[in-house]
Amino acid sequence: MRAATIRDQEILVEEHPDPVPGAGQVLVRVRAAGLNGADMMQRRGLYPAPPGSPQDIPGMELAGEVAATGPGVERFSEGDRVMAIVGGGAQAELAVVHERVLMPVPEGLDWAEAGGLPEVFTTAHDALFAQAGLRPGEHLLVHGGAGGVGTAAIQLARTAGARVTATVRSEELREQVAELGAVAVECEDYAGRGPFDVILELVGGPNMPENLQALATGGRIAVIGVGAGAKTELNLLALMGKRARICGSTLRARPLEEKALTARHVEHEVLPLFERGMLRVPVAGEFPLDRAAEAYEAFAAGGKLGKLVITP
Amino acid sequence: MRAATIRDQEILVEEHPDPVPGAGQVLVRVRAAGLNGADMMQRRGLYPAPPGSPQDIPGMELAGEVAATGPGVERFSEGDRVMAIVGGGAQAELAVVHERVLMPVPEGLDWAEAGGLPEVFTTAHDALFAQAGLRPGEHLLVHGGAGGVGTAAIQLARTAGARVTATVRSEELREQVAELGAVAVECEDYAGRGPFDVILELVGGPNMPENLQALATGGRIAVIGVGAGAKTELNLLALMGKRARICGSTLRARPLEEKALTARHVEHEVLPLFERGMLRVPVAGEFPLDRAAEAYEAFAAGGKLGKLVITP
Repeated sequence: MRAATIRDQEILVEEHPDPVPGAGQVLVRVRAAGLNGADMMQRRGLYPAPPGSPQDIPGMELAGEVAATGPGVERFSEGDRVMAIVGGGAQAELAVVHERVLMPVPEGLDWAEAGGLPEVFTTAHDALFAQAGLRPGEHLLVHGGAGGVGTAAIQLARTAGARVTATVRSEELREQVAELGAVAVECEDYAGRGPFDVILELVGGPNMPENLQALATGGRIAVIGVGAGAKTELNLLALMGKRARICGSTLRARPLEEKALTARHVEHEVLPLFERGMLRVPVAGEFPLDRAAEAYEAFAAGGKLGKLVITP
Repeated sequence: MRAATIRDQEILVEEHPDPVPGAGQVLVRVRAAGLNGADMMQRRGLYPAPPGSPQDIPGMELAGEVAATGPGVERFSEGDRVMAIVGGGAQAELAVVHERVLMPVPEGLDWAEAGGLPEVFTTAHDALFAQAGLRPGEHLLVHGGAGGVGTAAIQLARTAGARVTATVRSEELREQVAELGAVAVECEDYAGRGPFDVILELVGGPNMPENLQALATGGRIAVIGVGAGAKTELNLLALMGKRARICGSTLRARPLEEKALTARHVEHEVLPLFERGMLRVPVAGEFPLDRAAEAYEAFAAGGKLGKLVITP
């Protein structure tokens, strides 16, 4: 099979042996595989794939058809439309995935949408509800509202009855973010719009002191992105006074059991909303496998709202 | 009535008008009122009492007998032995307390023990279980194991099936802390003894970077004391990698509803353990009201395990 391949911080397309599904695993013919910020870090050698995942083939999410099943696979069979988060190896013609982390593709989603769904909607759902405990009626601030996780979080929070403010760096994207259901503001223009019950931090350290000031009593800050810097100063007395909580999370390092559980949560609480037309995956661009390097350049350039997807 | 009174950062004993219980309030003849770190801060003008509490009479916990009841009081009547956390005013001959925050004094506790119970056991119980979600089988680190909250936390964690390591600055107190059920170690000697599922931070900022390193995946740090400094540096990438949570809390600022709820939790989950002899309140010293200033000096001097209690 052919696959996007990391060589000296460059993305090439190379021939690899076809993967073979082991016990409990499914071989997926990949139709679409979304790009994520983590791929950019992995390309630069900063975020190696976990053990058991292909080390040189990037890609953390995919959608496609079941091509074959390994021993003991019970839920899915050949031809089923499936999607999943994987530890790596998604940007390829074929990928093996444990069936416990696979989800069915909801009716009405095309391949590009399905290939760009798992990572950002699972991450946003886990951060908002499992980590931060967002409740109806609460006020959410999303830092980085135009990114993949940001657009997912805004939509999920709105369907759950929360009010959403989102910071968006690019002026041109603010209207599109507003259409998702958020009040879209400049990055420096959020302090006076609180207090916020939950803050989803996708940008990083520099925001944290002001986040804590803008937080409501009993508020929660979920940190799942630190592109602008990992280090920050924290005033513990302010944290105590607000009775606040700061949690950090990442999906990739979790064991299979936890990944399977998040997949079940998404099936139960998110996919029905896609079927009812209440959520959508904005897709900003599709690239055939041969042009994978171009997709990476487009992602790094930024300035677009929606997912970039490789379509092998 | 006579009461400890803060005048220019000194503790005097002065005459005050007898307080009168309003609707839902109980007048308590105070038999014992424990000292806490917050009293030291309040004496220095750094931690004013919340609105509605006496501003110049310190004391955040008390035990005593019901002397009179205001309109609408249903649960307690004259002569009942009661105890409570209050916003202030406990170190006096009389105090009014809303009956929703009162708890009955468990059988077998004398006044000094009861007067030193509410603040530290409620704080420790809330931090360990409501904030940090401590579970049986987990490993807890208590920073500041010889203090009031520390000794309560060690005992509560042990009764809940957790393993406990505690840092204790004073070498002489380590054996007494060990008798409560913890492995008592020097303040610099905990990093290699983890990983810890929960860290109870009673000391402050300087510990935080090492805390995060010593934390288990999925671990929680509950910050409820910052005597050694409120500011700290936080590495958000480490927080994400550990999928960790940092929460800060304080009881005093909470509204009546929440204070009443914590009192019910303590009644339900802590007081039965006192009745079964599984918990105790170590008392290091009792001071009559006339010697209140001495009690403050003894507290500030430190070096003792157990509560200091004023007995009006």
